[in-house]
Amino acid sequence: MSLLVVGSVAFDAIETPFGKTDKILGGAATYIGLSSSYFNPKINLVGVVGSDFPESDIKMLQSHSINTEGLQIKENEKTFFWSGRYHNDMNTRDTLVTELNVLGTFDPIIPASYQDCEFLMLGNLAPAVQRSVIERLKNRPKLIVMDTMNFWMDIAMDDLKQTLALIDVLSINDEEARQLSGEYSLVKAARKIIAMGPKVLIIKKGEHGALLFNQDQVFFAPALPLEDVFDPTGAGDTFAGGFIGYIASTKDTSFENMKRAIIYGSAMASFCVEKFGTERLVGLQKKELEERLQEFVDLVQFEISL
Amino acid sequence: MSLLVVGSVAFDAIETPFGKTDKILGGAATYIGLSSSYFNPKINLVGVVGSDFPESDIKMLQSHSINTEGLQIKENEKTFFWSGRYHNDMNTRDTLVTELNVLGTFDPIIPASYQDCEFLMLGNLAPAVQRSVIERLKNRPKLIVMDTMNFWMDIAMDDLKQTLALIDVLSINDEEARQLSGEYSLVKAARKIIAMGPKVLIIKKGEHGALLFNQDQVFFAPALPLEDVFDPTGAGDTFAGGFIGYIASTKDTSFENMKRAIIYGSAMASFCVEKFGTERLVGLQKKELEERLQEFVDLVQFEISL
Repeated sequence: MSLLVVGSVAFDAIETPFGKTDKILGGAATYIGLSSSYFNPKINLVGVVGSDFPESDIKMLQSHSINTEGLQIKENEKTFFWSGRYHNDMNTRDTLVTELNVLGTFDPIIPASYQDCEFLMLGNLAPAVQRSVIERLKNRPKLIVMDTMNFWMDIAMDDLKQTLALIDVLSINDEEARQLSGEYSLVKAARKIIAMGPKVLIIKKGEHGALLFNQDQVFFAPALPLEDVFDPTGAGDTFAGGFIGYIASTKDTSFENMKRAIIYGSAMASFCVEKFGTERLVGLQKKELEERLQEFVDLVQFEISL
Repeated sequence: MSLLVVGSVAFDAIETPFGKTDKILGGAATYIGLSSSYFNPKINLVGVVGSDFPESDIKMLQSHSINTEGLQIKENEKTFFWSGRYHNDMNTRDTLVTELNVLGTFDPIIPASYQDCEFLMLGNLAPAVQRSVIERLKNRPKLIVMDTMNFWMDIAMDDLKQTLALIDVLSINDEEARQLSGEYSLVKAARKIIAMGPKVLIIKKGEHGALLFNQDQVFFAPALPLEDVFDPTGAGDTFAGGFIGYIASTKDTSFENMKRAIIYGSAMASFCVEKFGTERLVGLQKKELEERLQEFVDLVQFEISL
C-alpha cells in the first residue's frame, strides 16, 4: 500500500523581503515526500541528485519514513539548482539561476521493490518523463496525481496532453489552468481540462485557496489568512503532498474524501510558508497539525438551516 | 425594528465584454435596499435624485418594501450619473463619466418616522455626510455598518477616520484595506483598522470571497465559482445589503450570526453579477435564494474528525 513520489530533489537559494538563504534543500519530490510523510508511513521516492548532495539530507528524508532506494546519485555530477527572488507581494518572483545539472538527463528508474505502489504522485517534470514512469509500472496505480507548470505548456504541449490522458488528478495554479484551457473563467477552464483526461482538477490560487472540480461538483478550500508569508517556495508541492498523503493513508479516492484531502494539503502548505524552505516541514508535531486543522474548520464552518 | 439605508440612488451606463446599457437604475442605496429587502420587511431609504428620476423606479423600490419617504427629489436638477467600462478580466474598470449632479450637495435629512431605526447601513458617500447621519439620529442604532472607497482615503482621510470611530462594522475591499492600513498582509491590516474604531471588519476580495474579522476571530466566505460574471456593478453593495438585511431580520449582532450574514451577502452578490445592473435583484424568488445557499454549503462544508 505504498505511495510512489517522483520529482526533483534540488538545491534552492531564495531571497524574500525577510532575508535570503545559501543553497538549501529543495525540489518538488522533497516537499511532496516530507508533507505526505505526516499521513502515510510507506513512501518510495524516485529522483536524482549529484555527488554534491549531502548524506545528512538523505538521512533526514529517511527519518521521515521516505525510502530513498530510488534516489539516483550521479558521481561527479551536480544536483539541480534553482535560485529566485520574491517580490514584496510574494505572489511574483524572478528566477535568478536555473542549473538543470543531473535533472537534464533524468531517467526515472523504478526499483523492483516499488512496483506494488497503489498511489503515484508525479511532481513537476518534463511531461514525457512523467509519462515514462506510468509506462514503467507493471500495474496501474489506483490513483495518479500530477503537477505541471506553464513552462511545459509553452514548449511541450503535445507531450503534456498525452500525459494528461493517462492520469486521474491534475494539480495546477489558476494562471496555468487559464493557459492550458484558453478560458479565463475557472469553471469553464475546469470543464475543458477534465475533457483532456483527468477526472479531477485542483486549481491552486495561492493566498486565495484552492478549488477542487470533478465533472459535476466543485469544492473550495480556503488558505489560512497569515500575518506574513515568509517564503512561498514549495507551498504547491507541500499542498500536493498533503493531498496525496491523506488519500494514500485512507485509501479512499471518493470526491468526499478528496475534499478532506485538500483541507489537509492546505494545512500543510500553511506551515511550509512560515519559514525558509523545508524548515517548518521537518519534525512537525501531530498536535500542531491538529490545531491548524481546527483553524481551517473555524475559518469556514457555519450553520444555516435551509 | 427598522433598517435605515443611506446612500446614492443613481443612473449607471455600463459596458462589459458582454454588452452595454443605456442609463439604467443604479446607486449604492438602490442595491443595498433591494438586496436587504429579501430579509427584512421594514426598510427606510434616505437619498437624493433629480426630477429626471422615473416614478416607475420609485414604485419598483416601494414594491420591495422600501419606504422612500426619505428620498429627496430635487426639481430641475439631475440624478447622479456614472458610466464605466469593464475590462476582459472583469476585475478592473475605467470610469468614463462621473456627473455628481444632486449628489454634490446632498444633505441627508432623516424623516421623523425614521428615528426609531435599530440598524443603519451607510452606503459609500463622503465620510462627513455619513457622519452627519449618525449625528442626526436621536438614539444610536444597535449596529452601524459602513461602506467606503479609496477615493475618500485619497482626499478626506481625516474625515474618514472621524467617521470610522463611530461605527461598528466597516466593509471595504482588499486594496482599500491595504491603503487604509498601510499593511500588505490583510491580517495585519485588519488589526490596524479595528484599532481605528470598527469592532468588525469585512474585507471583500471579489471573485476570491470575503473575510470577516473581529479583534480575535476570523471567518471566510467564498465567492461562488461562476461560468461568467456578466456585470459586477453593485456586487459589493448587494453583498452589504444581504449582510445587514439578514442581521436586521434576525436582530442578532453576534460574530456567529455575522458569519451567516456574510454567506447570505455572498449569495445575494452571486445573483447580482448574473445580469446587468439591478435586473437580477428585482423579483428574485425565495426558492432561488435557498438553492443558492445550498450551493454555498456544498462548496465549503467538509467533515474532519479531530
